[in-house]
Amino acid sequence: MPHIELHNELAGIRGLMAFSPATAGPMGELANILLHTSEGGLSPADRELIATHVSYLNDCFYCHNSHGEIACYYLDGDRELVDQVRKDYENAPISEMLKALLNIAAKVQQGGKAVRPEDIDRARQQGATDKDIHDTVLIAAAFCMFNRYVDGLAANTPTDLSTYAPRARQVAERGYGTHIFSMQQP
Amino acid sequence: MPHIELHNELAGIRGLMAFSPATAGPMGELANILLHTSEGGLSPADRELIATHVSYLNDCFYCHNSHGEIACYYLDGDRELVDQVRKDYENAPISEMLKALLNIAAKVQQGGKAVRPEDIDRARQQGATDKDIHDTVLIAAAFCMFNRYVDGLAANTPTDLSTYAPRARQVAERGYGTHIFSMQQP
Repeated sequence: MPHIELHNELAGIRGLMAFSPATAGPMGELANILLHTSEGGLSPADRELIATHVSYLNDCFYCHNSHGEIACYYLDGDRELVDQVRKDYENAPISEMLKALLNIAAKVQQGGKAVRPEDIDRARQQGATDKDIHDTVLIAAAFCMFNRYVDGLAANTPTDLSTYAPRARQVAERGYGTHIFSMQQP
Repeated sequence: MPHIELHNELAGIRGLMAFSPATAGPMGELANILLHTSEGGLSPADRELIATHVSYLNDCFYCHNSHGEIACYYLDGDRELVDQVRKDYENAPISEMLKALLNIAAKVQQGGKAVRPEDIDRARQQGATDKDIHDTVLIAAAFCMFNRYVDGLAANTPTDLSTYAPRARQVAERGYGTHIFSMQQP
């Protein structure tokens, strides 16, 4: 049960965004730019995998399942790959550049100062650009916000994993934004 | 030196926002709503004190000094009070409600699940509304993003504390937003 009276039963962050539309606007827009519409550099699948891994490290069940399903949609349903990135990305069949960026994201999850020059060097050696590194740090940082918003207010969290896939498809096709809290439940 | 080439020498988050104007828009808007324009409930001083305390816990020198100076501006220059809230708010001369909200913010800094029902009960017993609790959790969560963005990219951080006060006054008078990265340096 949420810590505050939301006056709705929407799942996860959507319930919080409906409670606070003023802050929902820029939060949805930030997610949309970082994960959905950003041009060049990291693919939407890469971005969702970074979001999923950070949310997993933050132990945010709603977020790592939501974004894991969106990554899965982009990856033609390869749920096994998503799960391996969640838990053990260094041994997953992904590019060395994405591994190096996930390493940076995991450092950001610990704290900004945990990112060391050698982490940046590793990513550059695998071909990461300044924008790739910037976007990785900001996606990881933003999920340290989203995860804490969801769990810090104990948002409604569906435990039935089959409910996440239909929502994931809607987000992958329509993007993030304030429209998501008016979408069909859950 | 920043981890990426920013092509500017602006201080702290302003340098990052100038590098990435697309994400700067919603981030500035979120800060403005949470800290500057939100109507009712917590005062701007309360909001800046929460931001300062969380940034201090995250060891983000740029952010806890920037927001500490803005709080100081609202509190008629009472830097001693700001410093006490930064380091030992339970013994600071502030309301019991603000202490209870700072306790929630400090839990959010640890992680969303660290916020327990008894933390919420304590705040309610001191008169906190659902909106006060919501805003406290989101301010704390947002600074877990801002702090990681700044330190995760090793943004330029002025060490001369006298440079923070003029900027603090500008923000207190004009608010947050993308205009801040075009303001006079530092």
